[in-house]
Amino acid sequence: MNPIDEPNNALLPSGFIDLLQHEAEAEARGIEAVMDVFAQHGYERVRPPLLEFETSLLHGAGQALGEQTFRLMDPESRRMMALRPDMTTQIARIAATRLAASPRPLRLSYAGTCVVVGVPGREGERQITQAGIELIGVDSAEADAEVVLVAAEALAHLGVEDVSFDLSYPALVQKIVDEAGLNAVKRAQLVHALDRKDATAVAELGGSAAEILTRLLQAAGPAGPALEVLAALELSEAARVLADRLREVVAVIHAHAPELRLTVDPVEFRGWQYHTGVCVTVFARGQREELGRGGRYLAHDEEPACGLTLRPEVLLRAARPIALRPRVYVPLGAERTRAAQLRREGYATVVGLDELADYRAEAQRLGCAYILSHDELTKL
Amino acid sequence: MNPIDEPNNALLPSGFIDLLQHEAEAEARGIEAVMDVFAQHGYERVRPPLLEFETSLLHGAGQALGEQTFRLMDPESRRMMALRPDMTTQIARIAATRLAASPRPLRLSYAGTCVVVGVPGREGERQITQAGIELIGVDSAEADAEVVLVAAEALAHLGVEDVSFDLSYPALVQKIVDEAGLNAVKRAQLVHALDRKDATAVAELGGSAAEILTRLLQAAGPAGPALEVLAALELSEAARVLADRLREVVAVIHAHAPELRLTVDPVEFRGWQYHTGVCVTVFARGQREELGRGGRYLAHDEEPACGLTLRPEVLLRAARPIALRPRVYVPLGAERTRAAQLRREGYATVVGLDELADYRAEAQRLGCAYILSHDELTKL
Repeated sequence: MNPIDEPNNALLPSGFIDLLQHEAEAEARGIEAVMDVFAQHGYERVRPPLLEFETSLLHGAGQALGEQTFRLMDPESRRMMALRPDMTTQIARIAATRLAASPRPLRLSYAGTCVVVGVPGREGERQITQAGIELIGVDSAEADAEVVLVAAEALAHLGVEDVSFDLSYPALVQKIVDEAGLNAVKRAQLVHALDRKDATAVAELGGSAAEILTRLLQAAGPAGPALEVLAALELSEAARVLADRLREVVAVIHAHAPELRLTVDPVEFRGWQYHTGVCVTVFARGQREELGRGGRYLAHDEEPACGLTLRPEVLLRAARPIALRPRVYVPLGAERTRAAQLRREGYATVVGLDELADYRAEAQRLGCAYILSHDELTKL
Repeated sequence: MNPIDEPNNALLPSGFIDLLQHEAEAEARGIEAVMDVFAQHGYERVRPPLLEFETSLLHGAGQALGEQTFRLMDPESRRMMALRPDMTTQIARIAATRLAASPRPLRLSYAGTCVVVGVPGREGERQITQAGIELIGVDSAEADAEVVLVAAEALAHLGVEDVSFDLSYPALVQKIVDEAGLNAVKRAQLVHALDRKDATAVAELGGSAAEILTRLLQAAGPAGPALEVLAALELSEAARVLADRLREVVAVIHAHAPELRLTVDPVEFRGWQYHTGVCVTVFARGQREELGRGGRYLAHDEEPACGLTLRPEVLLRAARPIALRPRVYVPLGAERTRAAQLRREGYATVVGLDELADYRAEAQRLGCAYILSHDELTKL
């Protein structure tokens, strides 16, 4: 239906949508399928609330999310509450407080709805569903690789094809830029040029880091060649430690999943708000939007952590279509034992609420492929 | 942990809680189990957004929810948005707009999170999960009974025992009170007395309706005797039509589920905000809080509808405990083919991220009941 034809109360705020029958079912099943793969790998589900006090939700790593967060006044406490724009920082809070005494590494999973304020004038979803994992208390390439491997398995389970994991290391570029020792204005110009991937400007503005940054820009692509470029660069010792971690993470992932498509974009840093280590963005061929993202960060009290969040709304566009229960019309007054048996066998039964002359026509009108009459299942 | 011992950022606003590992898993599985029973009966899932414009969310039947609704300003449209306190009115909106052309009866299901402002000074959950069904486009006792029967099946599927469905008809009491022709002050006093179930005050204040109302008060209890009292009353023709509907609904439910415990409380009307017909509250023995509620109402454009919403947080306290996957520790470097097979068989595998001297101790520390070593599964 054209929005113009709808009554006014059918309009929703930009970025908020209804999922109708088939889509809502696919999303819910997709979330549960993903959560089940997470559980198979020992990630245990937690469910933080939709709202928290602003001071707790936007604490620590959450500070970076302030501008994307809706606030509400709590009439009870007279304090401001915030509607979560992200669940990772909530999981970090739970890990640091209620699960402070739980053994590490702590593997937690979560699924839920988040709301972001959005970017002015730019259309985009503002209600975002997240389904993710966090691996808390350990800082190693094995851990970084695990969240990628588990996410890859979840996507394969949903039938998402041609997935690629794009690895980056925002802190590495930042370190190289820092080491160039530019003043604040030049530094900002350089960062802007890197963000635009403008090689000419990067060469002009990069100072002593110009050559390294230019070669990093060109290195973006499949993990193997990209890491070779990275290995050949003359990096400071501090930068080399970071580059080595990226190489190790790729090696661990490849050891366990040699077929997985990995790319490396060493100058990608956009959209990473609180991450401190190797970061990852998940794509599928034919999907413009990313399927998920994650990376390494510091949880409360600087506890090392990494995680990955999938976006079920995007996933369901790339996933294998779901099979719905075939519908069986059960006329009013029909004996219901057989109907109960059909439900156990995987059918949906739709009971007639009126006596009618033509039950077959009614069954077809209601989208039923079968009719139950005199205990016989008949295909229409 | 005592709240006083927790750092300040662990405090949550009153009525908002974290569900930890086991509880969150139980809630999620409970929701999906209930939604699956709904799907078996032809109820198709939809997913409205968490926020809508205030004008659409609090339209029609939603008006009654205004005081319980948090508002937010949308910086994009500069209009007020409302955080849903209930999903039924959203389903009614979808039925009247995007699904206006879908055949009736329209059977829809939904599960999601709602937020209410709460009652000042009274502790209580303010984040409420709902999982429910709506049967739209038909006004009959068969339809009223169907939502009760389907909900009863969902509860049985979860292993909730000793369930009772308490039927009431707020509009019937209101009609009897109206017919007494009292002035506004006396009417308000009478309604207050009925709400308190104060038989003496009802007898004093009830005017010409005093006897009927007193007998209705005494009638509350198991459906059979309560309906007998109702049948013997000298009601106006208009009130009799309502009483007859209540009797018919009980008859249809009993015909299909003779064992189901049904009670009738003919003067119960508290908490029904937009309902116009037979209403129902669901209880389980040993649970102070109700498991769900529902009833008949008018959807958009006065389209007849009825529905029932279950509360998963309460359900999970009454449901059969869930079985979690037994955990298997897989030491670093172990061959992972066998681990993948164990996951398919229902185990959770927890991969070691470090080389250790004592893998058994580590497995126990991480709550694993098994260890995988040299492709052998060993119970600890």
